[in-house]
Amino acid sequence: MSEPLRIGVAGLGTVGAGVVKILQHNAGLITARAGREIRVVAVSARNRERERGISLQGIRWYDDAVEMTTYPALDVVCELIGGAEGIARDVCVSALKNGKSVVTANKALVAHHGEALEALSLEKEKEFAFEAAVAGGIPVIKTLREGLSANRIARLQGIMNGTCNYILTQMEKTGKPFDEVLAEAQAKGYAEADPTFDVDGIDTAHKLAILSALAFGFAPAMDPLPCEGIRRITIADIAYARQLGYRIKLLGIASEQDGKVMQRVNPALVPLASPLGTVDDVYNAIQIEGDFVGRIFLEGRGAGEGPTASSVVADIIDIARGIAAPTLNVFPTRRGNAEFAPLETIETGYYLRLDVLDKPGVLAEVTGALKDGGISLRDVSQHSGGPDERVHIVLTTHRVRERNMREAMAKIEAMDAVVEPPQMIRIEA
Amino acid sequence: MSEPLRIGVAGLGTVGAGVVKILQHNAGLITARAGREIRVVAVSARNRERERGISLQGIRWYDDAVEMTTYPALDVVCELIGGAEGIARDVCVSALKNGKSVVTANKALVAHHGEALEALSLEKEKEFAFEAAVAGGIPVIKTLREGLSANRIARLQGIMNGTCNYILTQMEKTGKPFDEVLAEAQAKGYAEADPTFDVDGIDTAHKLAILSALAFGFAPAMDPLPCEGIRRITIADIAYARQLGYRIKLLGIASEQDGKVMQRVNPALVPLASPLGTVDDVYNAIQIEGDFVGRIFLEGRGAGEGPTASSVVADIIDIARGIAAPTLNVFPTRRGNAEFAPLETIETGYYLRLDVLDKPGVLAEVTGALKDGGISLRDVSQHSGGPDERVHIVLTTHRVRERNMREAMAKIEAMDAVVEPPQMIRIEA
Repeated sequence: MSEPLRIGVAGLGTVGAGVVKILQHNAGLITARAGREIRVVAVSARNRERERGISLQGIRWYDDAVEMTTYPALDVVCELIGGAEGIARDVCVSALKNGKSVVTANKALVAHHGEALEALSLEKEKEFAFEAAVAGGIPVIKTLREGLSANRIARLQGIMNGTCNYILTQMEKTGKPFDEVLAEAQAKGYAEADPTFDVDGIDTAHKLAILSALAFGFAPAMDPLPCEGIRRITIADIAYARQLGYRIKLLGIASEQDGKVMQRVNPALVPLASPLGTVDDVYNAIQIEGDFVGRIFLEGRGAGEGPTASSVVADIIDIARGIAAPTLNVFPTRRGNAEFAPLETIETGYYLRLDVLDKPGVLAEVTGALKDGGISLRDVSQHSGGPDERVHIVLTTHRVRERNMREAMAKIEAMDAVVEPPQMIRIEA
Repeated sequence: MSEPLRIGVAGLGTVGAGVVKILQHNAGLITARAGREIRVVAVSARNRERERGISLQGIRWYDDAVEMTTYPALDVVCELIGGAEGIARDVCVSALKNGKSVVTANKALVAHHGEALEALSLEKEKEFAFEAAVAGGIPVIKTLREGLSANRIARLQGIMNGTCNYILTQMEKTGKPFDEVLAEAQAKGYAEADPTFDVDGIDTAHKLAILSALAFGFAPAMDPLPCEGIRRITIADIAYARQLGYRIKLLGIASEQDGKVMQRVNPALVPLASPLGTVDDVYNAIQIEGDFVGRIFLEGRGAGEGPTASSVVADIIDIARGIAAPTLNVFPTRRGNAEFAPLETIETGYYLRLDVLDKPGVLAEVTGALKDGGISLRDVSQHSGGPDERVHIVLTTHRVRERNMREAMAKIEAMDAVVEPPQMIRIEA
């Protein structure tokens, strides 16, 4: 137990520098908890000269991260480069092949190649750990895989993308539209120059695929995983939702019913007074329902140097302590194939906003189409809208099957008086 | 990895029966996750005939739980009897001495004898696990010891007693006084016939002592742990707090500053809009602040058959998987002695309610005493009170040192117009 654990860090961006910083700053504390010293012995990044607020004295430098993984005096490689393919994947594969454990924060990699990397780690009897891949500093992987291991999970849902949650919170606070708030978030460094992965829900989908696999006992599957982002959310939607007692959040949701798994990412109305309804700005939160534990709710910072590096170092300390749960919760030999339920079969409530011409009979026509589809309404209101002679009709429904809802929506969209594609947002309790 | 893990359950009350139920109900799932079967082979309780909703067929029965711990074909003993001394302690000691790992939900035992039991488990190289001892189904021990292991913890605070939280929530909802709500809670089985451990904060203190030890790296210490319960909270206090934007919760709080640990249990005003301010009824919640992770918030059911048994079985699955963090987070050889800060040195805000005779000059006299103590006020209000010529003066202060506050309170209590001992409740952000 007294040999130091020797770490190589591939990628010295925000998270990589954060990992080195924690291991230096809390060295005494970490040694006491791990029972042995944890020492960064090698690093790799593109630019050796950049100032990162950390000391690299006495640490081997590699321009080539893959080459670093062949260094014999290394026990663990932290892959903090990012991306599902290319160098990040090469680093992980090479590290495992060279008999090093791998710790990563790379959700795209785990979502797409988790099963293959698990197989390699089992073959080499080394760890492949990724607590930091989901929800930054929140130990949700550990909670799902170990803390709640006694439970059959019925459902999990969460806010897993800090950028989207920040944008939605700012839209609500300032009344500024999506494009404007996105541009401000980009200027502040809260959103990437290419925001696609965040705002179109792909990042959330990666994280959800990982949690869903752990919860329901299969390998991460990005398909089927219907994914809808937040670009179409307007400040009017946010205001109407609020009047109805809800806020709009981008959720990743996975559930199992009758042996079939449903996983999806979509914006959703969540009750103002619910735990998820109070999660603001860059915070993330996950709610998990188990058959014996009931509802568990976890909240914390979902991104950034400190929180993400905190989870990377937690994985490293686990390795130093010799703690390892099965990578994907269930060993491959005991794992089934997941059967997925189609999105059309879900049942939930819906929020609808229709931009219609203010003509007599429109509301009757719309509510008639819903009635014909067997859809019963909770709230109906009409709001004088913007230019021309348009108004907003806002409706919420009781629980109804998605298929029925879509059929009714197709009829509504075809109506002459409906001048824009209708807005439909699911309501999640 | 394929030999079954053999379990003996000592105590078949709510939690013990729940453990057997989970292991039977989720057997297939648990075997897949643990990589081996987990089999209950022995049980012990007082009454063999009682109907518990579980099958005991093929399971050895012991009238004497200590005798059960000597059964050779047993790997793990679950101690679910309760109490810091007597049979519960005997069972744990005997189990470890006989080479079995121990899983317990017994907070009093861990708070008072955690260090001795840890020493025995290290000597015998067996596990001593107690996730279920704190906050029922919330995996807070694992979060603190493993999930946040990279962080220096600055502070943790939480609602850790479901009975008190239920009573305070019901007082607020119904406007009924403490005694009446307590009697109702006892009738419903939410509170014990002797409610002392719950309502006087002792149960919270046991749990806090465990979390504080794990967070700050020492053995659990019940002394010093100043402990104040909820008996003195009135519905007037709850109503005034609400008007000021707060709710009253019983909190366990542990923090470290300048190398000194402060641990305490007291009712506190928490902001309505804060995560802790939204935790109702029998839910528990813990907020943990780490130097890199920031604030993490965990919420879930704090008691009852399902949630507590969920944590017991999670510990068992950890043992089946060969997962074990150091019992008290830091090994004894690397552990220091905690230095504790006296309660008088804390700095916080205060809520004061004074029952005074409605005479001219009283408010001036009171605020004068506070001013002399260097205490600056945030809110002052006067409310026509109950009988006679009494009124309530309600004040909140900015952050001030406890010592100054107490000196001022002693002066205020001595005033002729102050007819009842003043109410003083700390405000925790």
